Amino acid sequence: MTESKRLVVLVQETIDDFLSAHEVTAGEIGAELSPYIEYSRALLAGGKRFRALFCYQGWEAVTQSADSRQAELDCIVRVAAALEIFHAAALVHDDIIDSSDVRRGMPAAHRRFEQLHRTSGWDGDASAFGRSSAILLGDLLLGWSDELLDDGLSRLENRDAARAARREFNRMRTEVTFGQYLDILEEHSWRSRDEADVLDRASRIIVYKSAKYSVEAPLVIGALIGNGSLDQVEHLRDFGLPLGIAFQLRDDLLGVFGDPEQTGKPSGDDLREGKRTVLVAIARRKLPGTSSRLLDELLGDPELNSEQIRTLQSSIRQSGAVDDVERIIATNTEIAHSALQDVDISDSAQSQLLRLAESVTRRTV
Amino acid sequence: MTESKRLVVLVQETIDDFLSAHEVTAGEIGAELSPYIEYSRALLAGGKRFRALFCYQGWEAVTQSADSRQAELDCIVRVAAALEIFHAAALVHDDIIDSSDVRRGMPAAHRRFEQLHRTSGWDGDASAFGRSSAILLGDLLLGWSDELLDDGLSRLENRDAARAARREFNRMRTEVTFGQYLDILEEHSWRSRDEADVLDRASRIIVYKSAKYSVEAPLVIGALIGNGSLDQVEHLRDFGLPLGIAFQLRDDLLGVFGDPEQTGKPSGDDLREGKRTVLVAIARRKLPGTSSRLLDELLGDPELNSEQIRTLQSSIRQSGAVDDVERIIATNTEIAHSALQDVDISDSAQSQLLRLAESVTRRTV
Repeated sequence: MTESKRLVVLVQETIDDFLSAHEVTAGEIGAELSPYIEYSRALLAGGKRFRALFCYQGWEAVTQSADSRQAELDCIVRVAAALEIFHAAALVHDDIIDSSDVRRGMPAAHRRFEQLHRTSGWDGDASAFGRSSAILLGDLLLGWSDELLDDGLSRLENRDAARAARREFNRMRTEVTFGQYLDILEEHSWRSRDEADVLDRASRIIVYKSAKYSVEAPLVIGALIGNGSLDQVEHLRDFGLPLGIAFQLRDDLLGVFGDPEQTGKPSGDDLREGKRTVLVAIARRKLPGTSSRLLDELLGDPELNSEQIRTLQSSIRQSGAVDDVERIIATNTEIAHSALQDVDISDSAQSQLLRLAESVTRRTV
Repeated sequence: MTESKRLVVLVQETIDDFLSAHEVTAGEIGAELSPYIEYSRALLAGGKRFRALFCYQGWEAVTQSADSRQAELDCIVRVAAALEIFHAAALVHDDIIDSSDVRRGMPAAHRRFEQLHRTSGWDGDASAFGRSSAILLGDLLLGWSDELLDDGLSRLENRDAARAARREFNRMRTEVTFGQYLDILEEHSWRSRDEADVLDRASRIIVYKSAKYSVEAPLVIGALIGNGSLDQVEHLRDFGLPLGIAFQLRDDLLGVFGDPEQTGKPSGDDLREGKRTVLVAIARRKLPGTSSRLLDELLGDPELNSEQIRTLQSSIRQSGAVDDVERIIATNTEIAHSALQDVDISDSAQSQLLRLAESVTRRTV
């Protein structure tokens, strides 16, 4: 088994054990709480585990001595698992915010609770019940991610390293939440804001909502746990941020053109949600007036049918925006690669990070 | 100034400084984020600070030496402030869940964001924007409470005490979220559940949603930070839990009969929300069939007018349920008082806790 695969297995075991412990607590309060464990388990059984992997690789890259490695592995696995639980929390709330029905090929958490209400024949508004229960599920997972992070960091002998990792986690948590708001704000307010800044605003959303959160922060948290030098950490940031941008641009392309079988989300999901991505900003600029206006009109209509989705897809593709975004992905990937050469880490650590970089920028899932 | 008043001032200063620090971070990302600071500040400028006070008094009760007191005060003030920020987060999400328009005499957070959308003339659904933005505000405050808690606990030299306090906080966070779910579950499912258990279920909701969260846990967290003995902590629990039950029963009475001027919430708010409290459970049992059916019919109707509210109020009062609840409050308060006598703490600590107990069970706010 490769190291990455072994890490993914360890992270899954940690999550499973953690949920089982909470299953006991929940059971002591009441059997009605079982959906919280069941839905958490289902959501956390899947996913690409990129955040856990970046955390692990960030740690591995700066860790030299075999002694400290074994002692720190307990910490890093828990912190990596905590990042995945945090991400699950964000997804649960994100799906409420975006009214998404499907996540990882399964019903979104709020839809599961809604369905539970319906099949149980309860009173009142099933959809409101689904939303409220899922807000609480996200809150629970937020708390749990923190609990596991703290458990992991408390195993670290180097208290300064633990504090630095915690600070990075705190910053990430605040920044991604702000990034999420900027994203929904843009969906609602782009018409009344300066057209000239639209690409800058879309780029800023990428940085805070995703690039720092999905790549830079996990990588740096890992490197801080491994007591990486200031120089190593800064260069890993220079690698992580552009890579994170490339990662999210790939995500934007998949959100419009991805294969539902592979992404686990309906085709053209981002179009129905009206996400104002870099891809959309470029397409709007490149399209002739009538097509651009049609794009504006259809984008964000939750009722878009599959023919309208196809029309939008082909209009965006024909504008040349997809090629442009692919070029920006390639440029950012190159910047990341070149930054990686400046990081003072072993050749084998460099090639592991390169492989991981490739898997996040070239994926179809 | 009394010690309690001094604590409240210190907690407020800590919260203000903390929000100012985050205001800087937010400003660096974008000026559009200012509502997050502004609404947090407004929400955290008010409140009764019971959780902060119980935390402080729990610490004070077990702390003997003047040396450790000064060194630990930095920690306890931050932890007390963290409990208040956690509570603010819970209120923001609670108001979305209960569709409450008003909180602490001001618009609820989701209504503030909704209003921002309307006055800015943005596109799309203002109410969905309000809800989504407030979900994120709650998430942000959840993360911030944790950040401040960690900051506080990291100042404690006794690492075992810090870990024990953190474990209590973690448990509290999980239990209150489960308690919240049981509360909304009861609102939706009571008709299809065993009528014989309705009072038991309402009592369980009180324990998890409020009694442990509002009194027992803050008190115990404080005592653990002060390195209280196992015996002291257990006896403080025996004091805190019944007192917390009395606290919530008072809250239930205020939710139906409270003066809007004082509570900062509309008259009969809990009736519109359809809360299935112990008060309601007792009233339903005591009322004759027709009145009981009318209560069931009206309870939870968000459109109840003030005449209907008055009818419900007088029907609940005439049933004798209010007297019963007052008696249960008195009994629980007595149990708490008697438990307090078993706690091995100074006489002055006992009388301070008694004063605080009195203020939470006899309040009109």
